[in-house]
Amino acid sequence: MTIGIIGLGLMGGSLGMDLRQLPFVKEVIGHDHNPEHCKTALKLGLVDTIVDFETLVQCDTIFLAVPVDAIIAILQQMPGRIGRTTTVIDLGSTKARIVDSIPESIRCNVVAAHPMTGTENFGPEAAVPGLYKDNVVVLCDMPDSGQHQQETAVRLFSGLHMRMHYMHAYDHDRHAAFISHMPHAISYSLANTVLNQEDKYNILALAAGGFRSMSRLAKSSPVMWEDIFRQNKEHLIEAINLFENELSAMKKAIKNDEWDEVHKRLETGKKLHEIIL
Amino acid sequence: MTIGIIGLGLMGGSLGMDLRQLPFVKEVIGHDHNPEHCKTALKLGLVDTIVDFETLVQCDTIFLAVPVDAIIAILQQMPGRIGRTTTVIDLGSTKARIVDSIPESIRCNVVAAHPMTGTENFGPEAAVPGLYKDNVVVLCDMPDSGQHQQETAVRLFSGLHMRMHYMHAYDHDRHAAFISHMPHAISYSLANTVLNQEDKYNILALAAGGFRSMSRLAKSSPVMWEDIFRQNKEHLIEAINLFENELSAMKKAIKNDEWDEVHKRLETGKKLHEIIL
Repeated sequence: MTIGIIGLGLMGGSLGMDLRQLPFVKEVIGHDHNPEHCKTALKLGLVDTIVDFETLVQCDTIFLAVPVDAIIAILQQMPGRIGRTTTVIDLGSTKARIVDSIPESIRCNVVAAHPMTGTENFGPEAAVPGLYKDNVVVLCDMPDSGQHQQETAVRLFSGLHMRMHYMHAYDHDRHAAFISHMPHAISYSLANTVLNQEDKYNILALAAGGFRSMSRLAKSSPVMWEDIFRQNKEHLIEAINLFENELSAMKKAIKNDEWDEVHKRLETGKKLHEIIL
Repeated sequence: MTIGIIGLGLMGGSLGMDLRQLPFVKEVIGHDHNPEHCKTALKLGLVDTIVDFETLVQCDTIFLAVPVDAIIAILQQMPGRIGRTTTVIDLGSTKARIVDSIPESIRCNVVAAHPMTGTENFGPEAAVPGLYKDNVVVLCDMPDSGQHQQETAVRLFSGLHMRMHYMHAYDHDRHAAFISHMPHAISYSLANTVLNQEDKYNILALAAGGFRSMSRLAKSSPVMWEDIFRQNKEHLIEAINLFENELSAMKKAIKNDEWDEVHKRLETGKKLHEIIL
């Protein structure tokens, strides 16, 4: 099978690296609107070759590894350009708006996927082998994809050693708001809180592992996250509201010297790690 | 020099391991009110021997590696029990209340230190070699400690390869609220927010690196953190208030589709990583 990847940043580039190792993948072809990314991707061996958009859409399987707004724009250009058996797999971090935007004539061709992996780095230089391995990929509204396209997606994600979860796009977006989008909003806000302090250099001189791990997500690409926040606005705001209520209840208990209540909240929070390790 | 460590958990245990390697340290003696901790510490080689409190205070240098409330209680028992040249180094995570509680007759003996290191694990089993190496230790109100005690502390922390920062206890506590205590309150509240969702198992199935790093601090000891929150209550509440303002401004901009404003906030937050790597 020939594979095309549109978008050769962290996600697309790492994908290319790993797909090139699969025995049933004949060629991995790349396309990126940024010529520098194309050059770097070739140099680093993330893809076999670089082509223009018109040529890339002739691949058997096409991955869309660009920000979510760009995914929607590209999907509109596909009707008439891709074949009946082409599989288009989008890797966007929000799913409902993407699924809703797929032109009816190519609905069967598209598989809506969200690999729950990444790092805070971006661009083709950030690509690493094994980024997908042993991680979860959420596949949304799969019954709306064609039989062949479903099988192709499962074959590829199995080849990448990913664990597949099936979900409605709406549920995915709500879950992702809690597990990923809201934590990013927190991390950026934490970074801004410290940066706005008069003493920021003295404060940051003391930064240990805890602060580093809480502020790490604020290294991520602002362009990408603005886009995700926009696309998942309603769920994100719901998640932030619920988090604000929790923090405010913790603060109130501290303020009022209700130490049993504070302790209870610390104990219940700690239970999270009985579920995730 | 003989060294006594009161409290053989993560901090005290790791300290024992590293101090035993220093050529000028003759013996590392431990004490812990929990007999299981004492057994484990001996078994793991964190200390050379275990003694009772009355014997331990005869050491040349005594580290207090217990929760902050316990540090204050122990300091009250020291007058009359320690010698003129004894150095007592407390490792508490808050400093102002500890410094204020030191009995006048032993003020010269005590060095108030906060090593900015640790992990989310606790107890003697959590002890690891090299926990202190290359990290910052904040030394508070040093002019109030005796010359000999200052020199002893610097010699030991240099031996542990730590970088020393000097600060007033009040400033330390305010900085620590921003860099450590408030981020812990956030991490526990984030964990509780997700745990309170009806779909928590489905949500947590999607947890990737980002969520793990944001919720990691919620693994920490509730007893220890209740204690720290109590001791640094005023600064902690100030820091939470400022963080709440930042998050609320981000939420408002998202809600009102002010995407330039959202983008600006993401860009400024990202700048943090030009200061800390």
